[in-house]
Amino acid sequence: MTSDDAGKATVREILGKARAEGREALTGPEGKRICDAYGIPTPAEGLATTVDEAASLLMEIGAPVAMKIVSPDILHKTEAGGVIVGVDSEAAAKDAFEKIVASAKKYDPSANITGVQVQQMLGGGHEVIVGSVTDPTFGKVVAFGLGGVLVEVLKDVTFRLAPLDLAEARSMVDGIKSGEILRGARGSDPVDLDALADIIHRVGTLVTDFPEISEFDLNPVFATADGACAADIRILVETGEVTEPERPSQEEIMRVMDRMMNPRAVAVIGASSEEGKIGNSVMKNLQGGGYAGKIYPINPKATEILGYQAYPSISDVPGEVDVAVFTVPAKFVASSIAECGKKGVPAAVLIPSGFAETGNVELQEEVVETAKQHGVRLLGPNIYGYYYTPQNLCATFCTPYDVRGSVALTSQSGGIGMAILGYSRTTKMGVSAIVGLGNKSDIDEDDLLTFFEQDDNTQCVAMHLEDLKDGRAFVDTAKRMTKKKPVVVLKAGRTAMGARAASSHTGALAGDDKVYDDILRQAGVVRAPGLNEMLDYARALPLLPTPRGENVVIITGAGGSGVLLSDACVEAGLSLMDIPPDLDEAFRRYIPPFGAAGNPIDITGGEPPSTYESTIRLGLEDPRIDALILGYWHTIVTPPMVFAELTARVVEEARAKGIDKPVVASLAGDTEVEKASDYLFDHRIIAHPYTTERPVAALGAKYRWARSAGLITK
Amino acid sequence: MTSDDAGKATVREILGKARAEGREALTGPEGKRICDAYGIPTPAEGLATTVDEAASLLMEIGAPVAMKIVSPDILHKTEAGGVIVGVDSEAAAKDAFEKIVASAKKYDPSANITGVQVQQMLGGGHEVIVGSVTDPTFGKVVAFGLGGVLVEVLKDVTFRLAPLDLAEARSMVDGIKSGEILRGARGSDPVDLDALADIIHRVGTLVTDFPEISEFDLNPVFATADGACAADIRILVETGEVTEPERPSQEEIMRVMDRMMNPRAVAVIGASSEEGKIGNSVMKNLQGGGYAGKIYPINPKATEILGYQAYPSISDVPGEVDVAVFTVPAKFVASSIAECGKKGVPAAVLIPSGFAETGNVELQEEVVETAKQHGVRLLGPNIYGYYYTPQNLCATFCTPYDVRGSVALTSQSGGIGMAILGYSRTTKMGVSAIVGLGNKSDIDEDDLLTFFEQDDNTQCVAMHLEDLKDGRAFVDTAKRMTKKKPVVVLKAGRTAMGARAASSHTGALAGDDKVYDDILRQAGVVRAPGLNEMLDYARALPLLPTPRGENVVIITGAGGSGVLLSDACVEAGLSLMDIPPDLDEAFRRYIPPFGAAGNPIDITGGEPPSTYESTIRLGLEDPRIDALILGYWHTIVTPPMVFAELTARVVEEARAKGIDKPVVASLAGDTEVEKASDYLFDHRIIAHPYTTERPVAALGAKYRWARSAGLITK
Repeated sequence: MTSDDAGKATVREILGKARAEGREALTGPEGKRICDAYGIPTPAEGLATTVDEAASLLMEIGAPVAMKIVSPDILHKTEAGGVIVGVDSEAAAKDAFEKIVASAKKYDPSANITGVQVQQMLGGGHEVIVGSVTDPTFGKVVAFGLGGVLVEVLKDVTFRLAPLDLAEARSMVDGIKSGEILRGARGSDPVDLDALADIIHRVGTLVTDFPEISEFDLNPVFATADGACAADIRILVETGEVTEPERPSQEEIMRVMDRMMNPRAVAVIGASSEEGKIGNSVMKNLQGGGYAGKIYPINPKATEILGYQAYPSISDVPGEVDVAVFTVPAKFVASSIAECGKKGVPAAVLIPSGFAETGNVELQEEVVETAKQHGVRLLGPNIYGYYYTPQNLCATFCTPYDVRGSVALTSQSGGIGMAILGYSRTTKMGVSAIVGLGNKSDIDEDDLLTFFEQDDNTQCVAMHLEDLKDGRAFVDTAKRMTKKKPVVVLKAGRTAMGARAASSHTGALAGDDKVYDDILRQAGVVRAPGLNEMLDYARALPLLPTPRGENVVIITGAGGSGVLLSDACVEAGLSLMDIPPDLDEAFRRYIPPFGAAGNPIDITGGEPPSTYESTIRLGLEDPRIDALILGYWHTIVTPPMVFAELTARVVEEARAKGIDKPVVASLAGDTEVEKASDYLFDHRIIAHPYTTERPVAALGAKYRWARSAGLITK
Repeated sequence: MTSDDAGKATVREILGKARAEGREALTGPEGKRICDAYGIPTPAEGLATTVDEAASLLMEIGAPVAMKIVSPDILHKTEAGGVIVGVDSEAAAKDAFEKIVASAKKYDPSANITGVQVQQMLGGGHEVIVGSVTDPTFGKVVAFGLGGVLVEVLKDVTFRLAPLDLAEARSMVDGIKSGEILRGARGSDPVDLDALADIIHRVGTLVTDFPEISEFDLNPVFATADGACAADIRILVETGEVTEPERPSQEEIMRVMDRMMNPRAVAVIGASSEEGKIGNSVMKNLQGGGYAGKIYPINPKATEILGYQAYPSISDVPGEVDVAVFTVPAKFVASSIAECGKKGVPAAVLIPSGFAETGNVELQEEVVETAKQHGVRLLGPNIYGYYYTPQNLCATFCTPYDVRGSVALTSQSGGIGMAILGYSRTTKMGVSAIVGLGNKSDIDEDDLLTFFEQDDNTQCVAMHLEDLKDGRAFVDTAKRMTKKKPVVVLKAGRTAMGARAASSHTGALAGDDKVYDDILRQAGVVRAPGLNEMLDYARALPLLPTPRGENVVIITGAGGSGVLLSDACVEAGLSLMDIPPDLDEAFRRYIPPFGAAGNPIDITGGEPPSTYESTIRLGLEDPRIDALILGYWHTIVTPPMVFAELTARVVEEARAKGIDKPVVASLAGDTEVEKASDYLFDHRIIAHPYTTERPVAALGAKYRWARSAGLITK
């Protein structure tokens, strides 16, 4: 608790007054009172009405001080000769008081003079900025950066969601690129980093307690070895109404999502017997995909479709319906939604396009309003549908997909959804769900995360998104979820140019990418830099065991791959283990005398399978090693499939003994290494041919998640 | 010409004296004289021997000045009370002179006092660093960076090979990340950037003229709006001998390389009829690859191998031999090399390992020495051999490769060579040459570049390297070459961790990566961040036409891909064209009203082939557009192969009219998009499925090359 009730009351009063007066900006003294109320250090100051008071204030505050005229009639203090800085003794304070008052009287003989403000002069140490803005996606966001022009040029600033605890605040201080300066670069004194974290924390609490504070800036804050103090305060308030977005409870979300993902009965609104129609494709996919629940085609002109009895309207369906998949044109959606509501269908999947994405915002709003009135939640519109393999559910007009696995993928865009499907099929990626989100008129990423968090069939979630409707709800869910299961996010529109494309495409306001980046990391999300990486991570993460510690070891048959794998480790934020002498000795027993132990362990190119086998086994069995990266070099002595089989066998033997470490492999060789890579993948060893980067990047992603989930315990 | 002969004579004298005295460090006055001789501005100063001289020096130099005792007997000037700074008037100068002399006399009554130095005090503006080091790979390298602790922390410094012209020097000033500060960030005055470039240029000339200067530091240089001035000079000289590496002339290199790559006769030393032997594999590959020249197996125990007459020794071969491929064990190499020399064989390809890479440095040195004595140049040892497809030459123990094309690939590591082979085969990459460099005992990257520069069968070179034996020779050749043909380099060991692995692997001293990065760019080389990218660029660059201008346009069927493609453009340093109104209007004629013109041009997902066709044609035909990026979305209306065929047709129609712009494509869809991507690739449209990053990165690589070659002329 940063502030007591009295402090809160003070702030409430100040903000209330400003808002009542329609004032957007607070005055300096108001800002100082608010900082005082929340324990944010500001320069000591006092009002002197006599020369003696000025002198004793100087003694109290400590020299040097700045002295300034206080008069409601004098706005331009400096012009009036009303400011003297660097006052450094009692005598000087008395002298300054007299000079200031005399100058002020001379400047405006009729001025009403309240006194002279005596204020602590700050300086030394480093200038930093602490602030808060109201982000359209994330709400209250706290910012921290170094002050000064260089940092402004380099844009070295970091963001977190408010409120934040002291540890998170400290991670901001430690996280900026130029943070080394604060920690005492070049032998200078380190500043009091905890004092900075404390201010950040207090700012986060303040803006959370008072959402009507739209902007809050402490710039600069002077940070020294002894503490930190805000030299300048700027506060803006929202003069209009301050509202919070509506958020259904987790239970409400689950009640609908569970029925949508695990339906006992699916209705297809607009089902059709006619080839080429979307309503026909969806019916075929439901049937052909092997969905075992009830399927109700809804079509007023048919009595039977693909062998299923058809109904003129959803209200004619005899039993309960869990989800209605819409395949009718946009203009017919609203009325059918109302019928779904009356029937008690909790979820509607809106495949049709022709809504907001084509400029038809009104029609979409009508559908959303109707759905809200009738208690129906909406997926889409403008989507390919969704897949949920545990139910053999292919509620889509695309081709069916049936490789079961534990990753759930979602996409805001249909094109990306198609890429997910193609990549999944060609790499045999095991999937629990693929869900299109399209216009996100209602159900969005946090609803899906809430379901996948509780879904035992899903161990990893990968999401393509261009914006978040409610970033705060997403972060809340993701923060909880990522403690258990990794969440990979491909945030499109991450560059200025990309962001422009995003807004022309969906009308979505793509937030500043740095804000997204920091806050997604704060939520424990693993961000993928591109589509390729998102798909690679999605495929690899559920298969890779979670590492327990940071000690990564490279075992390679090609020295050249070893160097590139080391480069890739640095890129991926992995730590190459410093091999202790006994372990080095142990590895050396298996490799030729001219091979290089150390790390990478270069077993050299001409070695037989037994050398790979012995060194990999040692790497798995030594408890100090936490993860293995293998670099294979295609030779006649150890052909690709021989390597793949021996590696899979050794890894599986270790697993049988309870040793389950992440193992990834890069295979350099002729085309046979492709088959060998697939074989390894099938045995939960993440392997790629012709690249040293991709397997290491996947391991890096697993580590990023494991660290944020607190699972690196060694 | 930076310095005249008198200036050079001065520097020669100072350096000569220091080296004669065995001194590594020059004194301050020596440094100043050297700077004066090369026109590098330093603070104005003079020696005052009287109070009046001190006063007039102050007037001459301009206040404020610093004044310092000059006495051979007083080393610690400050301790002796011999330094006063901030002297700002004639009276103060006189006063300071007296005080300094008095203090000095008091400090050491016996001291011989030469006088008092009066020196201009610098300050204001920005502190920068200009320096030069002698890099083990590149020789004289010039460095530039901002001064101060923040920049030290952020390591914002840039390097170029010395000497450098004013434009290159200026590119350093403009190239640092925090350069905006010098250009006048936040409304401050821009500093005189040309004055900085001038100093950098002069430093480059100085260290080139005098290679015995091992280190040169101007730190800080004060840069203001009016000029720049070096406040502190530090110079180190090489006290030992200074030698330049030997460099064969381009003609000498070509004489050998041409015979090695286009041989009329190849001898295989150690050829064998026995399956599994390297000498057998090489014979089979030469024969099976279709090499049409003479093949001479050398084996004292055979009379015939694979149908070719065998000879006991190379000296027994009746005709001329252009290249001898060695497949004998390491210990037999030296004596055979001598025989090759006697026979007049200009090049030996040393496949065997067991040399420096296994610690057997002496044996390698013996071979190199023997080869040098006999005028034989060496490729390897420790390599897979080499391929040159225009001659159907597969002089290797690996599998043959016959897809002809115009990219030459080289690798320092055998493992990477195998990855090149596998990737090439599986992607049907058209190749002119694949060459292993291994231990680089003699022939290295610059020899190969010299050949490929003149080779009409090669239009692009891609090189994997861990170090450069002679970086300067490489840069000289690359600079010339990259004006005509792109050179892609994958520099392994680019991170600190990676560099450690490089030195354990080959004993190669991996230079600091930032030096490599800047200097490779200076040479016009396109650097690939990883193996995957090197291979992608190698495959794409020879096929992509060279863009004439910077206007890139994205045409996409999937808005989602459009956003990701825009992100990728920023990442790849591409500029999305600002579409002028008339062109926007023209595109709008073809796309649905809710589609988004602008850039990306979102034709929307449900469009028929004609929409893709019309917009792509317009993109090709409008002369303001320089390159196209296509985003395809798999739909039933426009299936993948329909898109691929129409795109190839439209592009080829344009080519027939003389319009040849680079076109790349990202295909999002089910697995059919793989075949469609291959089809497009076959028609010189760089296409990839399931990724928005790879096609754009390839286009970005082409642009990087085209810019450095000065081919972007619009």
